[in-house]
Amino acid sequence: MSQIERIGVSLEKELLAAFDALIDKQGYPSRSEAIRDLIRRQISTERLSHPEAEAVAAVFLVYEHHSTKLMGMLADLQHSHFLQVISSMHIHLDEHNCLEVIVLRGPVGEINKTAENIISLRGVKLGRINLLAAGVT
Amino acid sequence: MSQIERIGVSLEKELLAAFDALIDKQGYPSRSEAIRDLIRRQISTERLSHPEAEAVAAVFLVYEHHSTKLMGMLADLQHSHFLQVISSMHIHLDEHNCLEVIVLRGPVGEINKTAENIISLRGVKLGRINLLAAGVT
Amino acid sequence: MSQIERIGVSLEKELLAAFDALIDKQGYPSRSEAIRDLIRRQISTERLSHPEAEAVAAVFLVYEHHSTKLMGMLADLQHSHFLQVISSMHIHLDEHNCLEVIVLRGPVGEINKTAENIISLRGVKLGRINLLAAGVT
Amino acid sequence: MSQIERIGVSLEKELLAAFDALIDKQGYPSRSEAIRDLIRRQISTERLSHPEAEAVAAVFLVYEHHSTKLMGMLADLQHSHFLQVISSMHIHLDEHNCLEVIVLRGPVGEINKTAENIISLRGVKLGRINLLAAGVT
Repeated sequence: MSQIERIGVSLEKELLAAFDALIDKQGYPSRSEAIRDLIRRQISTERLSHPEAEAVAAVFLVYEHHSTKLMGMLADLQHSHFLQVISSMHIHLDEHNCLEVIVLRGPVGEINKTAENIISLRGVKLGRINLLAAGVT
Repeated sequence: MSQIERIGVSLEKELLAAFDALIDKQGYPSRSEAIRDLIRRQISTERLSHPEAEAVAAVFLVYEHHSTKLMGMLADLQHSHFLQVISSMHIHLDEHNCLEVIVLRGPVGEINKTAENIISLRGVKLGRINLLAAGVT
Repeated sequence: MSQIERIGVSLEKELLAAFDALIDKQGYPSRSEAIRDLIRRQISTERLSHPEAEAVAAVFLVYEHHSTKLMGMLADLQHSHFLQVISSMHIHLDEHNCLEVIVLRGPVGEINKTAENIISLRGVKLGRINLLAAGVT
Repeated sequence: MSQIERIGVSLEKELLAAFDALIDKQGYPSRSEAIRDLIRRQISTERLSHPEAEAVAAVFLVYEHHSTKLMGMLADLQHSHFLQVISSMHIHLDEHNCLEVIVLRGPVGEINKTAENIISLRGVKLGRINLLAAGVT
């Protein structure tokens, strides 16, 4: 376990009251927990703005069942030199559409480029990239 | 399979040239495929702005292995009246941290509220909600 | 001036070090100032998710000089019952294009609807809505 | 005026119907106008992801009236070697707070760095950067 430090933060009474109301609504057990989340998110956002930063990302694809090109590209992805596929999940949404969630690791720039290539495939109806934190502390 | 229609679009020569260059870089096989993607994303974004719209969403959580409260909440989620957990995936990131990806279905407003409650838990270091399309055409 | 309160926040040593490095790079004079900004942004984001919340917003429009319909609509906007135009700014970008920045006040839902109507006008090439805080503390 | 070209786009009947409903609600006079807007936004988003791209941006600042440091920094900004302030607008929000909108031009990377330095100043309560298109066609 990591060592814990304690710092003091000064803020206006009204701002503190508004913050307390918000985190109570969101279900936070303490101000410290809520502030830690804000700090981690900020650090993570900043890191992910560098193309060379190592990140974990999830790519979502909604596509038609019979998109064979996509199958081929996903297979190729398993042998990429730059990206490592950690895991993937396949879900039947309805009789026409599937959802594929692919969790991968690699440099932010490579992730974006690869995801764009997949999303542009015929048969892929919706695609989204979700960059998750690089080096969560 | 759905019936295909053909429409005409007029646009400035320079805009078309810039678009052709972009979609070529992204790997699109045709203008139609690229424009269909733009249209689907726009429709999806609009639908997801309504709290009552039925959506598929993915929730990502980076958390410490031993967060027992999270385990309890995820179990509760399986019995939610409003949300249906379709699938989930668990990934070991490093010796301290796990990544959980939960794909669920339900009204946008409920998804957001539930996700907030999970993200605010002690032990959850980073959380993100990714709303995917409601009623992909 | 508002009364100042002081609270304690506990966080992991490594997280604190990463935060100190980030806010030093961003130029913050103190941790308190940086944390206050994170808190204000979070409160503001939450408030702006309610359509009925009163907000200040800026609408940006890049458009062709001779778009007469836009001129008419902007004039109409001055007499809206729901929105109050606080100020606007007109900038020549190049020989074909102008930038208009309109700062207005009103309910979030009305702002979005009105901005959409303006952005959809012929001659408006790019449009963006920027919701700013409602009730900044 | 630029030369107009006409292209054909094929898409599923249901997708077209959903698109027609959406653009009718948004007030678009024609499909072409709506598709041009989607294309321009996509090109603009892509360009703005390059730090070296020349862009027009607006920086919003909500701050306390008596923030003298901010005044100094805004004055310095007028003499930046990298950024050109095109115009700025000052608005009184209430008895404590002002809104400053600064429209500037320069490389995306410089804009982000400068804006971060301004937002981190004591007395600046909320700050946002809005990158507008680089080279709108």
